[in-house]
Amino acid sequence: MSGTVHLPLSELEAIISAALVASNTSGDNAAIVARALAAAELDGQKGHGLSRVPSYAAQSKSGKVDGHAKPTLERTRPGTLLVDVANGFVYPAIDMALGQLTEVARSNGIAAAGFTRSHHFGVVGHHVERLAEAGLVALAFGNGPEAMASWGGRRAIFGTNPIAFAAPLRGRPPVVVDMALSQVARGKILTAAQKGEPIPEGWAVDANGKPTTDAKAAMAGTLTPLGGAKGSALAFMVEVLGAALMGSNFGFEASSFFTGDGPPPCVGQLIVAIDAEGFAGSGTFADRMAVLAEAIEGDPGARLPGMKRLSMRAKAKADGIGVEAALLEQVRKIAAA
Amino acid sequence: MSGTVHLPLSELEAIISAALVASNTSGDNAAIVARALAAAELDGQKGHGLSRVPSYAAQSKSGKVDGHAKPTLERTRPGTLLVDVANGFVYPAIDMALGQLTEVARSNGIAAAGFTRSHHFGVVGHHVERLAEAGLVALAFGNGPEAMASWGGRRAIFGTNPIAFAAPLRGRPPVVVDMALSQVARGKILTAAQKGEPIPEGWAVDANGKPTTDAKAAMAGTLTPLGGAKGSALAFMVEVLGAALMGSNFGFEASSFFTGDGPPPCVGQLIVAIDAEGFAGSGTFADRMAVLAEAIEGDPGARLPGMKRLSMRAKAKADGIGVEAALLEQVRKIAAA
Repeated sequence: MSGTVHLPLSELEAIISAALVASNTSGDNAAIVARALAAAELDGQKGHGLSRVPSYAAQSKSGKVDGHAKPTLERTRPGTLLVDVANGFVYPAIDMALGQLTEVARSNGIAAAGFTRSHHFGVVGHHVERLAEAGLVALAFGNGPEAMASWGGRRAIFGTNPIAFAAPLRGRPPVVVDMALSQVARGKILTAAQKGEPIPEGWAVDANGKPTTDAKAAMAGTLTPLGGAKGSALAFMVEVLGAALMGSNFGFEASSFFTGDGPPPCVGQLIVAIDAEGFAGSGTFADRMAVLAEAIEGDPGARLPGMKRLSMRAKAKADGIGVEAALLEQVRKIAAA
Repeated sequence: MSGTVHLPLSELEAIISAALVASNTSGDNAAIVARALAAAELDGQKGHGLSRVPSYAAQSKSGKVDGHAKPTLERTRPGTLLVDVANGFVYPAIDMALGQLTEVARSNGIAAAGFTRSHHFGVVGHHVERLAEAGLVALAFGNGPEAMASWGGRRAIFGTNPIAFAAPLRGRPPVVVDMALSQVARGKILTAAQKGEPIPEGWAVDANGKPTTDAKAAMAGTLTPLGGAKGSALAFMVEVLGAALMGSNFGFEASSFFTGDGPPPCVGQLIVAIDAEGFAGSGTFADRMAVLAEAIEGDPGARLPGMKRLSMRAKAKADGIGVEAALLEQVRKIAAA
């Protein structure tokens, strides 16, 4: 049971959904989670795709994640929504909130949805991409379990704390920025650890603070923030925007996204949406974006952020999604249990 | 005329204001600009302080900046303000807008002010710090003249594009994050160039794309983005948020902030303000921030972002502000012209 097998999107979604349903997640929630994880695989975001199923299933089974959670939404102010993820998976809560966030951002010019009692944010770029497809400029911030030290310190305080951003382009799919604030995403290290592969130097230090190329040792240590002190300051900002505003747990308080034991992580997220035509009126934003895109794409070697996803997505839709045979078998076994 | 001289804040403000008034800036505008530049000196932000006066004066004198500009404000949507800086200095426009931005953010939960036909953003941390002193969580994004290439490309497309963030702490001054997205701020290279000092490797490349330690050669070349591709993607985000939304010029279209020739730079800025109690209600945010601050400050070697400014500010208020004697003499001569 080694190598890569290819399967169509619908089949991958069905297998993931079945594994979650077999692990005490409701059918409705499982279908939404499966769609999100399969969409990660489509874009080649393997750290947020099929590799998450065994740990998601373990968390649902143990009750660390409530697979039957029904998220609720409260409009706390004219421009703000508070979404209680209710210790479920985040994707059903995002599905529920994005429609109202879009409406409020359009009428109000700017709006924000804060998520509390939440869980792993997944491919954050996908959430803001949906808003940009509706004509909005969107930003997202989410914290996660302790992974990085505050600059100059030794204790892991912050998560890898992704920031994502998307904006519409006229006649083209949106441009998407999506980054963890560690030098690399923890998901990449997880994937390497699962495959038993080493990681490059400079990605992480081990539990003793020493640089390591052992992915498993890195999972037990802390990650290096991008750009040193500046990346650490951005990670702080994400803890405040993504967690403090909603009263959520900080990175150093949150339980792991990877194991079934312990209390729910109770992390938080903030999604901000801005009407692209709310400041300068109709057409100006799209005109300006076309000028910016032309300048960047006219420079040999440069490209718009996030555009590689489109070719990967198209190829995976045509050829099927390539997944590790051993991982797929593991997920099938969970579904059959 | 060498070495450092110390002078009190009020005297420094008066000298700067006189230099601007002598260079065709109105007394009202000059007083506000002088306060902002002197406040930069108070915090040791020399790249945004007295060193800017000769170039600000040259731009006002030539008409590149309209020293008599009267900014205007329009509430385009319930949550958005459009501020026309009218090709003047930005500080009078910020002074005018922050009060209404504060009110709208409180009632609405979130609000944004977009600045267009704008100029050098100054110490961006100071603008968001004022909002945090009013109990808001604030973010700011501003673009500037071309300074950095889009990752993989050769042409300077983006400015150094600062991001700033501030949040209130109970019973203490706000925490402030303020960073240029270049490995270092262009202002630091300007200061080195003015002093004839070299710069460390890794800060910049010269006009031919070669690494340089010559500050003047670096001013003619491009700066390195923090964290490589991720910093470049953040700089792209700032061009969209700070400029495209308001129909402003992008970095590669904007004229220099340093010389009196050419058209106005017409860059843009966006300030977003969020009611700290708008999501989780009274007290929760302050409680959470206290927990985060305690965790960071309890880790030997770590500290909250931006806190060094407070000790520098206190020392400068007590001992006077130390400035280069030659630069001060240059500014006095502008005032006497």
